[in-house]
Amino acid sequence: MNPIRGAALLVHGGGPTQVINASLAGVADECRRHPAITALYGARFGIDGVLSADFIDLSALDESRIAAVGRTPGSALGSSRSAVAAADYERVLDIFRARDIRFVFLNGGNGSMYMAHQLACAASAAGVRVIGIPKTIDNDIAGTDHTPGYGSTAWFFACAVRDIGEDVRALPGRISVVEIMGRYAGWLTAATAFARARPDDPPHLIYLPERPLPMAQFLGDVENAFQRRGTVVVAACEGQKDEHGRPLGDLMRPDGFDRQLSGNLGHTLAQLLIRELKVNARSEKPGLLGRSSMAFISEVDWREAYLCGQAAVKAAIEGRSDVMVSLVRERGSEYRVTTGLTPLAEVADKDRLFPLEWIAPDGNDVSPDFLEYARPLIGPMQHHARL
Amino acid sequence: MNPIRGAALLVHGGGPTQVINASLAGVADECRRHPAITALYGARFGIDGVLSADFIDLSALDESRIAAVGRTPGSALGSSRSAVAAADYERVLDIFRARDIRFVFLNGGNGSMYMAHQLACAASAAGVRVIGIPKTIDNDIAGTDHTPGYGSTAWFFACAVRDIGEDVRALPGRISVVEIMGRYAGWLTAATAFARARPDDPPHLIYLPERPLPMAQFLGDVENAFQRRGTVVVAACEGQKDEHGRPLGDLMRPDGFDRQLSGNLGHTLAQLLIRELKVNARSEKPGLLGRSSMAFISEVDWREAYLCGQAAVKAAIEGRSDVMVSLVRERGSEYRVTTGLTPLAEVADKDRLFPLEWIAPDGNDVSPDFLEYARPLIGPMQHHARL
Repeated sequence: MNPIRGAALLVHGGGPTQVINASLAGVADECRRHPAITALYGARFGIDGVLSADFIDLSALDESRIAAVGRTPGSALGSSRSAVAAADYERVLDIFRARDIRFVFLNGGNGSMYMAHQLACAASAAGVRVIGIPKTIDNDIAGTDHTPGYGSTAWFFACAVRDIGEDVRALPGRISVVEIMGRYAGWLTAATAFARARPDDPPHLIYLPERPLPMAQFLGDVENAFQRRGTVVVAACEGQKDEHGRPLGDLMRPDGFDRQLSGNLGHTLAQLLIRELKVNARSEKPGLLGRSSMAFISEVDWREAYLCGQAAVKAAIEGRSDVMVSLVRERGSEYRVTTGLTPLAEVADKDRLFPLEWIAPDGNDVSPDFLEYARPLIGPMQHHARL
Repeated sequence: MNPIRGAALLVHGGGPTQVINASLAGVADECRRHPAITALYGARFGIDGVLSADFIDLSALDESRIAAVGRTPGSALGSSRSAVAAADYERVLDIFRARDIRFVFLNGGNGSMYMAHQLACAASAAGVRVIGIPKTIDNDIAGTDHTPGYGSTAWFFACAVRDIGEDVRALPGRISVVEIMGRYAGWLTAATAFARARPDDPPHLIYLPERPLPMAQFLGDVENAFQRRGTVVVAACEGQKDEHGRPLGDLMRPDGFDRQLSGNLGHTLAQLLIRELKVNARSEKPGLLGRSSMAFISEVDWREAYLCGQAAVKAAIEGRSDVMVSLVRERGSEYRVTTGLTPLAEVADKDRLFPLEWIAPDGNDVSPDFLEYARPLIGPMQHHARL
């Protein structure tokens, strides 16, 4: 171990979550405990703020301000989806030198972990340590049991489907397709299964993008469920593809690193049901609300996000670089988590998809194994009292 | 006054709200206090349940069960959008006679108040008293200061725009169009103004359906706002019409009493922005979640919904019929509400639209008078801490 001294820098990447600011608070609180860290800067708007040296001095702020920000959703620093060209890394290192930045924390998803790995390689000769802090609602980062951000958004969507389901139930003859976030991975859509308290509760059908959805199957599933119950609630992932691999929501966006679905899967499926089955269908798309709702911060998720921020600082102080903090679930019947460290090279730009063996055989539900895995991560599920 | 004795019947009409079950609890609790009311039935699924004599005996249930149901969103009885033909009223009266039903409470919106009026006229000779209990998230019932259900859903959408806005703010260059419920009336969309804590906070543009929205104005407004801020959040009502009176969201639904928008206004506007302004636009549509979310029951709204239920029973006991319970705001700087009674004929099937004088001159915001009117009705607005 090579004891170094200097400033630290925190950078956000990708979309905000309910708890990315909790990791910020964890980093800020832990930095204060280490005299080797002379200051903590936050980059405004992610890597763009690094490239323009647009920094906030987080160490100059009151602890109470950090604590308050830590409790609110959204990225308080601002984030970015920009990619960094190889040529940019030299510029970044110049900026680090000018500010005496020796500890760098990148808090983001797959794409940010790729950037963190590139940066760690470029910066190692300069004695700059780079640590990744995982963050994504999608739960699709490799090398960690789950990701900070997932539990809160999973909780939001489980409660949303529960509440929409109770509404749909009151006026028979209706079908609602609820569009769930998640792009390529079905983890969030799967979590809507927690909406159920009784056997016939919604969601009645759950579709995950890891398994293509033939239109004939979709129509058949809905028709069966509708005949049995008189109302149907479908949970479908925004990135769901049909049997030909085509995304079901329209996309009007060029491909690339900052590609964002501006699609409309729920509406597309609802219109299909109206047209083909002549039923009363509609769609709901909470969209960004799912990852930003102040009312849905899972306490476990918050604590773990904070812990990951702390662990990143400790790892950097201990001389580690080119690693991502991971969440490690301990064995045993009680849910307990510690942090570990995973080489960034094993994580960078990899998608951890929902395991196919956790999709029920009919392709329209999830397995009990998934429920066991995800239950400790979300907040408490209250259920509707009924007459 | 003509003292009568007999059973009471509660009927839900139209879409559920967060607090329609609070009115149910108010009716149930108050009925227990009056020996003249021998039983309280609840019709399953609204007027359809009346026509098929499908009743639940609410007076046989534990008080604790009623209290628990009273605290959860959704219509615990089930509701209906069915219309009743003139010929049906005789059948309804037969069913009342068979069950010795003398007190009838219809809890619903404009359409239900029309039905209540017709029923009151048909039933008066039979000595059956009919009282309307207002309920709608849309706040568009005449003859009352506001409607139970409005405050909770208004609160939901204000918080939704606040949270979505914080997400949008973190990744510059984005525009989000948030589709707000409300069909023909802009009351809910207007309430998104409570999302703002600081001058530049979202929503940056608010459009109400009471004023047609020319596409050229919409594009110009968004372009200006985007150039000024780099991000824009638009709050638009699902029922917004363009300058030719055409609804902007597609509609695939036949006209009629049970006409429900299955439209897609937010997506339509976002696609328009992408096409015309070449910007990064998307849409969110919480939809039914806005009126069903367990996390957003405004305490004031809940209390008033309960009070309306109680007041309906008292009015019936006092010999009144063919009236709707109204909420009456007392004069003075402190918010205080009592209940009154309004003849159903003055209320039936009338839309109380958002006052044009409460729309800001540019047509893209609301006036301070509206904020003063609506502020006491919603729940507490917490705001994001910032660095």
